[in-house]
Amino acid sequence: MRILVLGGDGYLGWPTCLRLSKLDHEVLAVDSYIRRDLFKKTNSKLLYEVPLLSERVNIWKSISGKHINFFEGDLSDWNFVEKIIKDFKPEAVVHFAEQPSAPLSMLDVEHANFTLINNISVTMNVIHAVQLHAPGAHIIKLGTMGEYGTPNIDIEEGWITVEHKGRSDKFLYPRQASSLYHTTKIMDTDLLWFYVRTWGLKVTDLMQGPVYGIFTDEANSPDLLTTFAYDEIFGTVLNRFITQAVLGVPLTVYGAGGQTRGYLNIKDTLKCIEIALKNPPGNGEMNIFNQFTETFSVNELADKVKKAGDKIGLEVKINHLENPRKEKETHYYNPAHTALKSLGLKPHYLTENTITECMEFVRKHEDKIDVDLIFKGKKWFA
Amino acid sequence: MRILVLGGDGYLGWPTCLRLSKLDHEVLAVDSYIRRDLFKKTNSKLLYEVPLLSERVNIWKSISGKHINFFEGDLSDWNFVEKIIKDFKPEAVVHFAEQPSAPLSMLDVEHANFTLINNISVTMNVIHAVQLHAPGAHIIKLGTMGEYGTPNIDIEEGWITVEHKGRSDKFLYPRQASSLYHTTKIMDTDLLWFYVRTWGLKVTDLMQGPVYGIFTDEANSPDLLTTFAYDEIFGTVLNRFITQAVLGVPLTVYGAGGQTRGYLNIKDTLKCIEIALKNPPGNGEMNIFNQFTETFSVNELADKVKKAGDKIGLEVKINHLENPRKEKETHYYNPAHTALKSLGLKPHYLTENTITECMEFVRKHEDKIDVDLIFKGKKWFA
Repeated sequence: MRILVLGGDGYLGWPTCLRLSKLDHEVLAVDSYIRRDLFKKTNSKLLYEVPLLSERVNIWKSISGKHINFFEGDLSDWNFVEKIIKDFKPEAVVHFAEQPSAPLSMLDVEHANFTLINNISVTMNVIHAVQLHAPGAHIIKLGTMGEYGTPNIDIEEGWITVEHKGRSDKFLYPRQASSLYHTTKIMDTDLLWFYVRTWGLKVTDLMQGPVYGIFTDEANSPDLLTTFAYDEIFGTVLNRFITQAVLGVPLTVYGAGGQTRGYLNIKDTLKCIEIALKNPPGNGEMNIFNQFTETFSVNELADKVKKAGDKIGLEVKINHLENPRKEKETHYYNPAHTALKSLGLKPHYLTENTITECMEFVRKHEDKIDVDLIFKGKKWFA
Repeated sequence: MRILVLGGDGYLGWPTCLRLSKLDHEVLAVDSYIRRDLFKKTNSKLLYEVPLLSERVNIWKSISGKHINFFEGDLSDWNFVEKIIKDFKPEAVVHFAEQPSAPLSMLDVEHANFTLINNISVTMNVIHAVQLHAPGAHIIKLGTMGEYGTPNIDIEEGWITVEHKGRSDKFLYPRQASSLYHTTKIMDTDLLWFYVRTWGLKVTDLMQGPVYGIFTDEANSPDLLTTFAYDEIFGTVLNRFITQAVLGVPLTVYGAGGQTRGYLNIKDTLKCIEIALKNPPGNGEMNIFNQFTETFSVNELADKVKKAGDKIGLEVKINHLENPRKEKETHYYNPAHTALKSLGLKPHYLTENTITECMEFVRKHEDKIDVDLIFKGKKWFA
């Protein structure tokens, strides 16, 4: 299948390219390297540098004999997107190409506006280019569980039937996020659903939880590994906790620590993309799958990291800090996640072994870690 | 009160400036004249030209002795918005400044992208500038009843309590619009609600239906009148029907004609803005009012126009055409609209007299009307 991977240089984009190439799909990866620029601008650092995508596709070719094509360009530019899609005529588009950091989107007006306009423009351009030049292509869009927020009722997979005053109708599940970044993903969903209804597009919207892990089957050489971010802006909570455990500094739990989310292993993300590709919706239909395998509160994650760390001789301490974010710190959370499992997902759960494996890996790079990047306490509100 | 009116050159923006000035508020009107540019680019025409806003404020001054300040500039530009709000320090912002045409947003990718980015950027800039430089200012945002679409359950005013599997929570009423323009208004609401929750802003979101009418109390000179659009892109249904009736060409009902919406007289729009200004929400609260006074199907409007036209000697015919839009042509529609009335709105209903008064006025400009602009049948889908 001809598959266009947007954001192919990213934490998930690159392992996805590898997997799809391994499966003998014709893969075209596109990226603007914006994430690398944002790292520089915000003085963030990865645990280790990874080669440019233009180099990584060559490394992959030398190891596997398989070819991943790559174009560098700005997907918020309509002319670029039109050219890519007109020339490549993808049968599927996997769309990771967004500014992915919630904290970055809350830094200041400049980063907020960038997040908003960039993320929505890319989605809009993809919609229009597919409609004009690759009709029938399946758009697989990475959304986020964060779109739903933390409602006091069960979270369903994308849709809910509302009974009201003796009548009923089916709606997109109500969404209210707790960062601007997550709000742009709500807007993406609104855009996609509008054009699905109006133009008959075929879309899968994957409501993904925070992803952890580094190792994927195809990345069997150090130069093929995906990235590991541990800083306040780009590092998700488990990465930050693991890094703090390795360095012997206390884990920074924000507030009460009851904030609960659905998590998944990066290996499962790749499988979910495979499943979505194999199960396209019909014309004018939108599949929405909740993409995570287990839920944890921040306290539960901290305890898991402490337990795993203590076992390998780290003395892990846990600190509760004033929450720099505006979010419920204890709340009901019961999101459905049966669709992907019923289509064949076999979860890799977050075992003690998964955590210690990651800790041992981080330890190897310990001397390069900048501890000040992990927690700065930048507030999301005035 | 220091009131900033964004989009002060528009169909509603200008009469709002007049009313607020009449009420002795200190009014700063801002506009980029983008609507005038879009009219030129799309070969649309108004029934009659109106002076530039820079001229209209002088005309108003010579008639009333009252001063409306005016700045020309692009509100999608952060630096401009920041400067305006930092210097003027408004106590309230009335935000009309969006590309207002649903058909324009469906023309092609260029106009779709313009509508999307322009509308969302203005709202985002206002949010950030108020937070930084006019904290506590009341943002009054013109939304649209079109955000709700045509659900099979009663439409409430902004919010709905959902009972689900034995639990319940209150959400923004689910939204799904039938044009990109209306979808950008959904996004505006999502943005506003996010920052209300996170930063404690004070926002009123007015879910307005299509507005009809030209005459407002303060516009007591021809040069102070607001605009009248009758073309397919900028003219709403009642204006187009009245113009067709005057010209003796059949009214163009799209499809079955059961499409039902909530309408209001422009006089009531001004009163609603006044009411919103007098009833600001608390910090961190968002008022949402459904702003219309009666609902009509397209068929009912056509019948009203025919009846009124026949009475003054026009021979009005009605045609049902293939619908160029994608929308339900018969549907349930029962939207609540009690909040504004309970706060003092006394509706001006759509009487036969209101229609004939408008017909007589259009008749005076009959020789300048370009009949080909009223219906072109440009499709909203492939």
